Amino acid sequence: MTATPAPFTADDYRARMERAARAAADAGLAGVLIAPGPDLVWLTGYAPPAATERLTLLVLAAGQDPVLVVPTLEAPDAEKAAGAPALTLRDWTDGKDPYATTAPLLDTSGLPHSLNGVGSAPIGVSDNAWALHLLGLQKALPGTSYVSLTEGLPMLRAVKDAAELERLAAAGEAADATYEEILKVSFAGRRESEIAGDLADLLRRFGHSQVDFTVVGSGPNGASPHHEAGERVIEHGDTIVLDFGGLRHGYGSDTSRTVHVGEPSAEELRVHDVVREAQEAAVQAVRPGIACQDVDRVARAHITEAGYGDRFIHRTGHGIGVTTHEPPYMIEGEEQPLVPGMCFSVEPGIYLPGRFGVRIEDIVTVTEDGGRRLNNTSREMAVVH
Amino acid sequence: MTATPAPFTADDYRARMERAARAAADAGLAGVLIAPGPDLVWLTGYAPPAATERLTLLVLAAGQDPVLVVPTLEAPDAEKAAGAPALTLRDWTDGKDPYATTAPLLDTSGLPHSLNGVGSAPIGVSDNAWALHLLGLQKALPGTSYVSLTEGLPMLRAVKDAAELERLAAAGEAADATYEEILKVSFAGRRESEIAGDLADLLRRFGHSQVDFTVVGSGPNGASPHHEAGERVIEHGDTIVLDFGGLRHGYGSDTSRTVHVGEPSAEELRVHDVVREAQEAAVQAVRPGIACQDVDRVARAHITEAGYGDRFIHRTGHGIGVTTHEPPYMIEGEEQPLVPGMCFSVEPGIYLPGRFGVRIEDIVTVTEDGGRRLNNTSREMAVVH
Repeated sequence: MTATPAPFTADDYRARMERAARAAADAGLAGVLIAPGPDLVWLTGYAPPAATERLTLLVLAAGQDPVLVVPTLEAPDAEKAAGAPALTLRDWTDGKDPYATTAPLLDTSGLPHSLNGVGSAPIGVSDNAWALHLLGLQKALPGTSYVSLTEGLPMLRAVKDAAELERLAAAGEAADATYEEILKVSFAGRRESEIAGDLADLLRRFGHSQVDFTVVGSGPNGASPHHEAGERVIEHGDTIVLDFGGLRHGYGSDTSRTVHVGEPSAEELRVHDVVREAQEAAVQAVRPGIACQDVDRVARAHITEAGYGDRFIHRTGHGIGVTTHEPPYMIEGEEQPLVPGMCFSVEPGIYLPGRFGVRIEDIVTVTEDGGRRLNNTSREMAVVH
Repeated sequence: MTATPAPFTADDYRARMERAARAAADAGLAGVLIAPGPDLVWLTGYAPPAATERLTLLVLAAGQDPVLVVPTLEAPDAEKAAGAPALTLRDWTDGKDPYATTAPLLDTSGLPHSLNGVGSAPIGVSDNAWALHLLGLQKALPGTSYVSLTEGLPMLRAVKDAAELERLAAAGEAADATYEEILKVSFAGRRESEIAGDLADLLRRFGHSQVDFTVVGSGPNGASPHHEAGERVIEHGDTIVLDFGGLRHGYGSDTSRTVHVGEPSAEELRVHDVVREAQEAAVQAVRPGIACQDVDRVARAHITEAGYGDRFIHRTGHGIGVTTHEPPYMIEGEEQPLVPGMCFSVEPGIYLPGRFGVRIEDIVTVTEDGGRRLNNTSREMAVVH
């Protein structure tokens, strides 16, 4: 397996925060508010013990130094974050109003970059910021307006640099190694949850620090795309959707393959072929400049032509980075053009209620020359025992 | 240890949803919106695989059947929740606008219970609902206003019934057993993280399904109240704050004790005595009808009189139930009267920067006769080796 990459430094985080503040200004935002979660980890390296009712918020705006608002009792931990030297901490104590602490930081009206009048420029806020905190800010600052980062700055983390691509490739390599190993275990007579346990163990053995999901959808359970593993006992003749991933070196993996216990029937093979061809066509379509929705359309057109259009009941893919689900989304209506460095899943599927499902998924990164897969195991339907 | 309690049924969840809808109407809310997380678990038994950018939302209003809005691909899992028979599922498919699906459910203007004009009555929303979703609803329904449940209906889950108290007592019993066992391990020469691992193992051994935190704050690290366990090697002469908890049978534990490696000094003992007496006085003060802030005041007054008022840098306590931190909060400004069935922590502390910290914490439930502790280990400073 690949070597452990060097940790990100305060300079790396400073560069990301500057880039984010500039991108926000370019997008017409007065600034951005980052809640605990993947955005905060990506920008500062800081992850509070838990996202709670106590406000922790990074405030970024062009021409203003980054400020991290933290509860006093968490300040000592925040100071230890790798990105802490690149920002100013401002703490607030239990019983005080954290929104009053934050409000002056959002009043950027005196600054030269104040855009088209700050009163009207919205402030971007992390998708996963708590409603509690957004409502607190809306009340403390009635003149401000807000947009989610998915709406206002969706591509904040979407274009990965070389150090990030290295980590995503390493995560994909570990997921591939996990798949190769799982083909060797016994399926028939064991519960889905046992196979899921094997997948989690393998992901960890191959370097994952966190397992996010281990879907084992056998027989009819495979027809529910997000069925997790349950207590169903796998039988000879089952088609099984495997979909697993997590974080390695802080970056995500996510791959799906569909296997069969014993030889598949002609119909099972045909459905699998349709999905495999749809996935191949969509990956081949990836290149800079096409819209995200085009990736979805290519996969969907192939499945629709084969007569299964109404059984492909989810989008074709989602971005991946410090999380396993993030923008860009490969979905009808998403007109964002692909840019080199973007990474996302391509995962069409067909789901036949009460019978079985098929899904095939690789992470793909956009290069100048087209799409490059970060998952490279066989996409033929493997026969397991 | 206690026996496993019987699982909650659809009738239990139906009763909770009805109670919540009535309480919302009584509080002047047009309805409540419940996001994935503890509120949704408590009301329906449903926990989606993860809280994501895909909208899942329970809509409750008096005189209207409960509706759970879910992504189509998660509908099969939602149908299996114990509370599912007591609600209607309404699913939305990737690519469609989930806020458009939800909006008609919030238009309760035609209903007889429509309060003082629905246009002005705010809608309560889970504290931890994503900003993304709240902004989506605010945009889809510009005439609506929202308040967090902490502001609009803070006591939704605060008063526990007998079945809940049984679970909280069982969780406390397991935390107490964990503390008794941790006193037997070696502390000196081991890392905080190793003791934390021991605590987690013990909590699980005593029936916890989830460990939420295992604070081991040795020597100067104890002066940071929310320091988690780190790589510091514990030495003879260290004062150590232990604070641990998680979920057992779906309900929380949370207890703190401060121990000492070898005999404590006169000053360490004195600080510990001040905290112990403050905690005792606060627990003794608990009875129906006093305000939450009174519990804080009693503890704070004792510590302030002893000259450490500025070193008690957090609130005195927080509620506990299906989470380990929830309303009611024992904090200055919280005027909510205590009600029999409420459960919360009483956990004063003193933190001397660069030196050591002391915290003592029990979960206490309010009875007609006063406070009853759910943690019952010794509150003297234990000497460990």
